[in-house]
Amino acid sequence: MIKVKGFKFSGINCGIKKSGDKDLGLILSEKRCLSHAVFTKNKVVAAPIEIGKKNIKTNKIHGVIVNSGNANACTGKKGIKATTAILKEIANRTNLDTSNFFPSSTGVIGIQLNYKKINKNIDNLLNSLTQSSFMEFAEAIQTTDKLLKFRHKKIKIGKSSGNLLAIAKGAGMIHPGMATMLCFFITDLKFNSSTFKKLINDAVNGSFNCISIDGDMSTNDTVIGLSNGMANNKKIDNKSRALNEVRAKINGMFYELAELIVKDGEGSTKLCKIIVKGARTKATADTIARKVSNSLLFKTALYGSDPNWGRIIASVGATQINYIDQNKIDIYIDKIKIVKKGEANSNLAIARKIMRKKSIEITVNLNIGKSSAFMLTNDLGHDYVDINSLYTT
Amino acid sequence: MIKVKGFKFSGINCGIKKSGDKDLGLILSEKRCLSHAVFTKNKVVAAPIEIGKKNIKTNKIHGVIVNSGNANACTGKKGIKATTAILKEIANRTNLDTSNFFPSSTGVIGIQLNYKKINKNIDNLLNSLTQSSFMEFAEAIQTTDKLLKFRHKKIKIGKSSGNLLAIAKGAGMIHPGMATMLCFFITDLKFNSSTFKKLINDAVNGSFNCISIDGDMSTNDTVIGLSNGMANNKKIDNKSRALNEVRAKINGMFYELAELIVKDGEGSTKLCKIIVKGARTKATADTIARKVSNSLLFKTALYGSDPNWGRIIASVGATQINYIDQNKIDIYIDKIKIVKKGEANSNLAIARKIMRKKSIEITVNLNIGKSSAFMLTNDLGHDYVDINSLYTT
Repeated sequence: MIKVKGFKFSGINCGIKKSGDKDLGLILSEKRCLSHAVFTKNKVVAAPIEIGKKNIKTNKIHGVIVNSGNANACTGKKGIKATTAILKEIANRTNLDTSNFFPSSTGVIGIQLNYKKINKNIDNLLNSLTQSSFMEFAEAIQTTDKLLKFRHKKIKIGKSSGNLLAIAKGAGMIHPGMATMLCFFITDLKFNSSTFKKLINDAVNGSFNCISIDGDMSTNDTVIGLSNGMANNKKIDNKSRALNEVRAKINGMFYELAELIVKDGEGSTKLCKIIVKGARTKATADTIARKVSNSLLFKTALYGSDPNWGRIIASVGATQINYIDQNKIDIYIDKIKIVKKGEANSNLAIARKIMRKKSIEITVNLNIGKSSAFMLTNDLGHDYVDINSLYTT
Repeated sequence: MIKVKGFKFSGINCGIKKSGDKDLGLILSEKRCLSHAVFTKNKVVAAPIEIGKKNIKTNKIHGVIVNSGNANACTGKKGIKATTAILKEIANRTNLDTSNFFPSSTGVIGIQLNYKKINKNIDNLLNSLTQSSFMEFAEAIQTTDKLLKFRHKKIKIGKSSGNLLAIAKGAGMIHPGMATMLCFFITDLKFNSSTFKKLINDAVNGSFNCISIDGDMSTNDTVIGLSNGMANNKKIDNKSRALNEVRAKINGMFYELAELIVKDGEGSTKLCKIIVKGARTKATADTIARKVSNSLLFKTALYGSDPNWGRIIASVGATQINYIDQNKIDIYIDKIKIVKKGEANSNLAIARKIMRKKSIEITVNLNIGKSSAFMLTNDLGHDYVDINSLYTT
């Protein structure tokens, strides 16, 4: 049984989703948590993000309250009022302060959130809290996700035994607005504050920041980490022996969740990791990996299992990065070199077979410098078009 | 009958396109032309672009020779040899120098161009030259274009009468590589060199540089202008009375051709002009217009006639431009305001009707500064997916 000391979970339906599916979730810690969050960089942000940014600064977070079915984005002052009213209600019922809660919303953009439906169900939500119902919470934060997304790791530190649990939802697009990537990472391990922040930031950079479903960016994306320290381990800091193991576990969990999100992206049939090597800087490697991963032509070729390297190399060049030399570029599909020094390397028959796999690795080696980067992306096919066009707002 | 003094045209099949469709075109001027070209900014460029860039600098261009069906891109040294061989052949047969010709190719990437097929047909190409066969040339440069694209204007300057003729091909994507936007602009009017360059650069900036089919960028895009001065008008310079009229005509021709290219984009069912107003700078207005015009979510909504403004506003914010204030943003579909200060303005029923039109204007007013920009884009539907995926390299 997966448990994280001192944390309880619940997930219920409060009537936002007319289907009756769960749409309201809560994670509550007995003790105040060390907390750190990473937010969307979109300049248009949802009401809960505005409030969450303030609350996280107080470093007094006890819990997160999340609704799905409505993003509470582009809802102006009324949106702020709605989130505030929800936090007041949950604070009252738990004898805590509004600043002890971190709010999240995901779903439709531009429609006012009916917070009264939520507030009528706060008792119900609190009564459903148990130490083992993280699956109910995971369900309650879903929008169009086809599978529950979570990863759990146990870890021994000295005589203490701790837990790491991350629960995420997908960034696929939903009608009528844009869905959101959310990840709630909780742990009973005790951390030094700056170490905790760095671990989360680094893990996000190597996972959720390297995925592209369609190059768009949500107004609500959030990753939040909460540590209540109830495992009573010796505080993990930059000098801890356990640091490497903890880091590897968090990185691994986040990476696997990121992969799950891409795989589960709407209309997706394939997962593709695009690796750019031999760049002069990490930043330019990243720019190139992003450009290829967002290319419609590449994504449709992926859908059609077409090893169309012309589209890949043209995307690389389209970044207009000055030091690129087309006559040095090698391209591999899995281990098969299909482009050598910018020209066809006639392995197309094998490449074509590989392209039919559900998971493909494409490597672009610029053969100039020593920096690299990667992106996880998926294909663009008929289901994507259907899901994203066959709806009228 | 459309004629441009001193210019002859031809278009034939030389065997590159197995369909037998025209695939080799020539424009030849009696006199050496004042010339200026604008090229793709892609760092991966085709062999003819490398050679064309050198030849245009000599300012001795007499003609352009263009093949379709093969882009001669990512073909290395052999590709350069192929283009060089073609120029040698045409130079020999016309008693001109190779530097008198400007080469273009469009079609498949990464496959060697069989230049021998072209060279065997140079006589045929030259024998087909007539003053009136510009339609044959227009046909020969097509790839997947569904319609011929040209615009012609006559103009009186003093006692002289001159002609402006622009012939283009589309930037829709073709299997298996990336197609190219080409535009050949010829005139018998006499121009001052710097005035001619500025006219072309400005017209390109207001037309071909403002179109997005799929956010990708070809390795071969070229706009070239040739002026042979045979209209014998008083040279047009920055102080000419006729300048405004000439500028308006060139801008108009280029803009209309750009619209035709977007309308004729593969799988396209709709044309959409995205206008960004109230930006602090022209550059940021342009960044925002480009971001929206490349958004898959927006393009699929366009296909589905869905006035999904949440996707538009989220795209605006995704540019991460600092001065954007979501609470100031207004959005219009044609003349209907659907978003007022960042919130829904409930005109969805009317907006939904407008979205069914074949040509739609979307205006985003940031209400911050005084700069504006626009982009022409099209929708993303099932035909796009079919055309770009159902092919195996």
